[in-house]
Amino acid sequence: MSGSNAQPRRAVVLLSGGLDSAVTAAWLCREGFAVHALSFEYGQRHSVELHAAARVAKQVGVVEHVVQRIDLRAFGGSALTADIAVPKDRSPDQMTGSIPITYVPARNTIFLAFALAFAEVRGAFDLGIGVNAVDYSGYPDCRPEFIAAFERLANLATRAGVESGHIRLHTPLQTLSKAQIVRLGRELGVDLSLTISCYDPASDGTPCARCDACELRARGFAEAG
Amino acid sequence: MSGSNAQPRRAVVLLSGGLDSAVTAAWLCREGFAVHALSFEYGQRHSVELHAAARVAKQVGVVEHVVQRIDLRAFGGSALTADIAVPKDRSPDQMTGSIPITYVPARNTIFLAFALAFAEVRGAFDLGIGVNAVDYSGYPDCRPEFIAAFERLANLATRAGVESGHIRLHTPLQTLSKAQIVRLGRELGVDLSLTISCYDPASDGTPCARCDACELRARGFAEAG
Repeated sequence: MSGSNAQPRRAVVLLSGGLDSAVTAAWLCREGFAVHALSFEYGQRHSVELHAAARVAKQVGVVEHVVQRIDLRAFGGSALTADIAVPKDRSPDQMTGSIPITYVPARNTIFLAFALAFAEVRGAFDLGIGVNAVDYSGYPDCRPEFIAAFERLANLATRAGVESGHIRLHTPLQTLSKAQIVRLGRELGVDLSLTISCYDPASDGTPCARCDACELRARGFAEAG
Repeated sequence: MSGSNAQPRRAVVLLSGGLDSAVTAAWLCREGFAVHALSFEYGQRHSVELHAAARVAKQVGVVEHVVQRIDLRAFGGSALTADIAVPKDRSPDQMTGSIPITYVPARNTIFLAFALAFAEVRGAFDLGIGVNAVDYSGYPDCRPEFIAAFERLANLATRAGVESGHIRLHTPLQTLSKAQIVRLGRELGVDLSLTISCYDPASDGTPCARCDACELRARGFAEAG
């Protein structure tokens, strides 16, 4: 069944337009997957990231890019979706002490649930998400135990999972520092200038340079040279 | 902290407008929860069920009813969302042999993920879903092992879960037959005439009387007298 005529296996990647998901998408492409990217318009403050996601999708060579619209504003409860200020100028200590206000309730559970549906319809058994230890900074749904629990759920929740037991979540950045992610992105040929990480950019897409995401990104680029 | 001044605990229920979710919502009300109902407009053929959900929400006495719009048609792949005929006139054997074409990929995972977000924002630790053994008829995401896996995930995925470990999924219908569900609904004072179960109703809401959901409902009412 192998050989040059074999169809590539398909994978679905969550693509936000940020650094981490761009590198994850490129990593899946290098692994030989035909990659289907999924982004969300979820009432986030930083919707310019969707334009970045579209540019990144094209540059890394995904085969399809779907944007799903959902309304997390109907529930509120996060600085990324409600009228709460995004924290600025925090020290690394402040960023890692507890779950930050930029936490969006159950966001990665919702995103992965849609990715699972998309994967099943496209015949994909592999899902990619750009969570990592540094970007964790308190988000419970970026931890390895969350990812493992979702992978288990996925194999119980779907026809594809029940019939194959082979649905797999890929988190290639899980143990990497931001600097290592930047280096991996360069190695994979990702045009990192297309990505945007800021939680609170200006309407023209200019990053604020002061939120947690900007701080983590700047440190990563500095350390990677 | 108890007594007549105590605020009731809150719960979120998935409310489709069908028989099972109506009885589940009423059951949570009887358990003393302030119930927040969540419905979805997801590109389903049978959107008349949303009108039923609104009527049921009012009749059973929920404190809030939110409708979330999502687009499962963007992925396709089910007779409930794509241009595939809903099967009719199937025998009980045909209904239970394998996963039916009316299966919507990852639907309950997506619905519960939103319910989890809604619950966290409202300070609820209890989620209700009207899955049951008969309505299972092959849907993997109605099984007890799926529900248990989601409950475990919920406690890893959210701030509320990590801080309390007490997020709980309630499935009061899990082991009931349709006839028992009908009887429980009557006992709880649910106006069952408001509910609609049909997968393929006419545009005025008239049930087709021939799909699996209609067959199961009719048998339940017949057995319950």
